[in-house]
Amino acid sequence: MTETDFNELPAHVWPQGARREEDGVVTLAGVPAPELAAEFGTPLYVFDEDDFRLRCRDMAAAFGGPENVHYASKAFLSTRVVRWVNEEGLCLDVASVNEAKVALAGGFPAQRMTAHGNNKGQDYLELCVSAGVGHVVLDNEGELARLNEVAAAAGRVQNVMIRVKPGVDAHTHEFVATAHEDQKFGISLATGAAFAAAQACLEASHLNLVGLHCHVGSSVFNAEGFKLAAERVLSLYKRIHTELGVSLPELDLGGGFGIPYMEYEEALDVAALAADLLAAVGRTAAELGIAAPKVLVEPGRSLVGGSAVTLYRVGTVKDVETGKDDLPVRRYLSVDGGMSDNIRPALYESEYDVRLVNRDSEAPLVDSRIVGFHCESGDILVNERRLPGDITTGDLVAFATTGAYQYMMSSRYNGALRPAVVSVRRGQASLMLRRETIDDLLALDVDL
Amino acid sequence: MTETDFNELPAHVWPQGARREEDGVVTLAGVPAPELAAEFGTPLYVFDEDDFRLRCRDMAAAFGGPENVHYASKAFLSTRVVRWVNEEGLCLDVASVNEAKVALAGGFPAQRMTAHGNNKGQDYLELCVSAGVGHVVLDNEGELARLNEVAAAAGRVQNVMIRVKPGVDAHTHEFVATAHEDQKFGISLATGAAFAAAQACLEASHLNLVGLHCHVGSSVFNAEGFKLAAERVLSLYKRIHTELGVSLPELDLGGGFGIPYMEYEEALDVAALAADLLAAVGRTAAELGIAAPKVLVEPGRSLVGGSAVTLYRVGTVKDVETGKDDLPVRRYLSVDGGMSDNIRPALYESEYDVRLVNRDSEAPLVDSRIVGFHCESGDILVNERRLPGDITTGDLVAFATTGAYQYMMSSRYNGALRPAVVSVRRGQASLMLRRETIDDLLALDVDL
Repeated sequence: MTETDFNELPAHVWPQGARREEDGVVTLAGVPAPELAAEFGTPLYVFDEDDFRLRCRDMAAAFGGPENVHYASKAFLSTRVVRWVNEEGLCLDVASVNEAKVALAGGFPAQRMTAHGNNKGQDYLELCVSAGVGHVVLDNEGELARLNEVAAAAGRVQNVMIRVKPGVDAHTHEFVATAHEDQKFGISLATGAAFAAAQACLEASHLNLVGLHCHVGSSVFNAEGFKLAAERVLSLYKRIHTELGVSLPELDLGGGFGIPYMEYEEALDVAALAADLLAAVGRTAAELGIAAPKVLVEPGRSLVGGSAVTLYRVGTVKDVETGKDDLPVRRYLSVDGGMSDNIRPALYESEYDVRLVNRDSEAPLVDSRIVGFHCESGDILVNERRLPGDITTGDLVAFATTGAYQYMMSSRYNGALRPAVVSVRRGQASLMLRRETIDDLLALDVDL
Repeated sequence: MTETDFNELPAHVWPQGARREEDGVVTLAGVPAPELAAEFGTPLYVFDEDDFRLRCRDMAAAFGGPENVHYASKAFLSTRVVRWVNEEGLCLDVASVNEAKVALAGGFPAQRMTAHGNNKGQDYLELCVSAGVGHVVLDNEGELARLNEVAAAAGRVQNVMIRVKPGVDAHTHEFVATAHEDQKFGISLATGAAFAAAQACLEASHLNLVGLHCHVGSSVFNAEGFKLAAERVLSLYKRIHTELGVSLPELDLGGGFGIPYMEYEEALDVAALAADLLAAVGRTAAELGIAAPKVLVEPGRSLVGGSAVTLYRVGTVKDVETGKDDLPVRRYLSVDGGMSDNIRPALYESEYDVRLVNRDSEAPLVDSRIVGFHCESGDILVNERRLPGDITTGDLVAFATTGAYQYMMSSRYNGALRPAVVSVRRGQASLMLRRETIDDLLALDVDL
C-alpha cells in the first residue's frame, strides 16, 4: 500500500455501499458516518443491508440456489437479519437453543433451520422436534438415542444428518480448525464409528437420515480441503449404499469461507470455488457409482463479515517515546470501545482496515496504535499501522469487516454497554439493536 | 501431583469454605454443590463471602490498614461485593463511568473511590467531580486540563494523582504487562513529561495533587518490580519537593498480585511482600531525604479471584482417537458453559483446577479435555488434564479461582445466557446476580 492511498476505501474490504464523498466524509449506503454517530452514538455497528443481500445472492447463485446455503447465526443474529435471510431464501444454522429461539422469534421457518451443537441439552432437542426444525445435525451416539426418544414421544420423525470427522484440516490456525480428529465435534469416519452411527440412525424408529455433515475449518480460501473431505465422506455414502441399501440425498460440507480483512488480502472467488467443489463432488460420486447428493454449504462469516463496519470516536491522543530504536515514537489513539466490542484482535491477533470517516486527510502518516478504553494494556484494536498524523480527539474512525463474531462475542467488561446496531439502505438508517443502558447492566443485580 | 490426590481440594487454590465431605460431595461454605446447582442452575458462579472478607483483611493488615488497599471493580463487580468492600473499609478502584455508577448504586462512599482510565469521557469526569470521588488518576495532560475545567465549573477542588510510567515491567506476559514505556497508560517519567504534568497540576486552580500512581503489571508474585518502580517514582517525589517545594503525601503502586490457579503454583506471601515493599519505600525515601508517602496498593485479582468457583454440568462425553502416538485417545467432556463465561483459556491460555464435586471418584485418571457447548473448536476450557475416567453425563464439575475477570468478560456468544452468581456463607446461599433469560437477550431487539 502506498501511503497516498489512505483516503480510498478498498472496495473488496468495505461494504459495497461505502463511499468517500467529495467533501471527504464517508457515507454508508448514502448515510454520512458523522450523522450515524450523532444520531445513534458510538461505538456503533452499521450493517449495509444491500451488501448483505448481495452476498447472499452471490452465494446462492454459486451453489445452485439459496436453499443450499446456510447462514450461520453465531456470526451475527438479530431478528432483522433473520428476516433478511428468510427473504433471500437461505437456510439458517443455529447452534444452541437460544439461537433457535431468536430465529423463531424472527419468524424464520423451522423447516429451513439446521440445528448444530456438540452438547445439545434436552430442551434444545425438544424445541427442534416441536418446532419442526428441518435438520438436526447429530454430534454423537448418545444424542442420536436421545433425539430418537424425543421424536418418538412427540410422535414425529425427525430429519437428521450426522456430523462426521473426515480428518481434514483446511488450514492451520489452531483456534479455528475443526476437522482434524482431535476435537470435540462429530463422529470419526476413520474408526468406522460414523458408519455405525449411520446404521443406528437408519434403524432408529423416529429418525430419518438425510445425509452427512462435515466441517473442514473456518476462513477457508480454497476448495482443496472441501474436496478432500467430500471424497472421504462420499466413500461413506458408497458404503452406506452398498451395505445398507440407502442413498443419502444430501451432503453438507459445512464452512466456512474466508473474507479479506485487509487491503492486501484478496477476496475469494466464490463462484469459481463453488464450481470447482460441485464438479469434484459430481466426479467423485460418479467414480464411486453413487448418485451425487445435493451439496449444502455453510459459508459463515463470508455472508456477513464484510457487510458491517464499526464507528468509534477518538478520545485520548498520545505520542509515546517507546525506547525502541526501530520505532522511537508511537502515536496512541484511544477510542470509546475496545476489547468489549471486539475481542478478536486479543483472541486471534485479527487485523482490520481502519479509516478516518468524518473527513479525509492529506497529513503524512505516522506509526500508530489504536487502543480501547479498557483498564488493560492488552486492549489493543490495531497493533501497528501508519495512520494520518492529524487524527485527533473527536474524529471518527471506522473499522471495516466487523459483521461477524464481534457483536456476538461482546462483553460488558469495565462496565461497557453493548453498542447499538443499525442497518442502512438507500440513504436511510434504522436501529436494529438498541444500545444497552446502565439499567440493563443493573437489571441482573438482585440487591437493588 | 500424584494421581491419588484428585479428591483433595488444594487448600491454597480453593476458597477457604470449600470442603469435600465424608459422603464425597463438595460443600462451599457448608452448602452442597449439587444443591446449589439444583436451586440456581448451571453454569453457576459461587462466591464464598467469608473467604473474600478474609482476603480483604489479610491484605489490609499487610499494608497498614484497609484504607491503603483498593479493590478493583474490573475484576468483579456487583452491588453486594461493593457492600462487602465498603464494610471491610477498603477503597474501590473504578475504571469507567459505569463502574462508578454501579459502585455508587451499591452505596459505596465516593470519597473512598479512585477513578482510572486512559480515555475518560466528559460524563465520567463530571460524575467524579459531582459525586466527590476521592482520587482521580490523571492519565494524560489533556485530561488534566479538562478535569480542571470540570472542577472549576462545579466550584470544587478535585484530588488527583498522576499515572506515571516508571518503565518497569514486572513480568513478561505481553497481554497483561503495563509499565513498560510502549503502552497506552500514563505519562513518562524518563522523558520529564511526568514532572511537567505534576507542575501543571500544582498550578491548576481546581486540582489538588496528592501523589503519583504507577502500575508494574498484573499477577505479580514478587516485590522486585514494585520496589524498582517505587525507587524511580520516588525520585520524582524528590524532584517535586526540591524544585516545586511540595511533599506529595501518597504513593499508589498499583497492582496486581498473582494468585495460584493450579495446585503446583504457590500462594503469594502477602505479608512478606508488603513488609519488603513498605520497608523499601521507607528506605528509599530516607535516602532521598524526603518524607515517606503513604503507600496505596491495588491487589487486583488477589482479593477476589480465589473466592469463587464455577459449577458446570457435564453433558456429552466422548472418547476421541486422536491419531497421535503420544496420546492415542482423549476423553472429551462437554460442559454447559464455555468461552462465553470464561474467555481466559482462549485469551491467555489460562489454566484452572477442576474437580468433580457431586461425588468423589476412585476411578483411574484418563487423558481428558474439557470443552464448552459453543460452536467453535477453540472453545476449550481445560486443554489437557488427567481426570477420573468415570466422570459422566450429569456429573457436576467445579472450576476454582474463577472470581476475577470471568463474569465481567462474559458474552452472549451462541446465545449463551450470562450465568447466575450466588454468594455462600455459613450454610446459606443467596442469589447476587440473577441468570439472564432469553427475554434479556431479546430486549435489545427493536424489531420485536
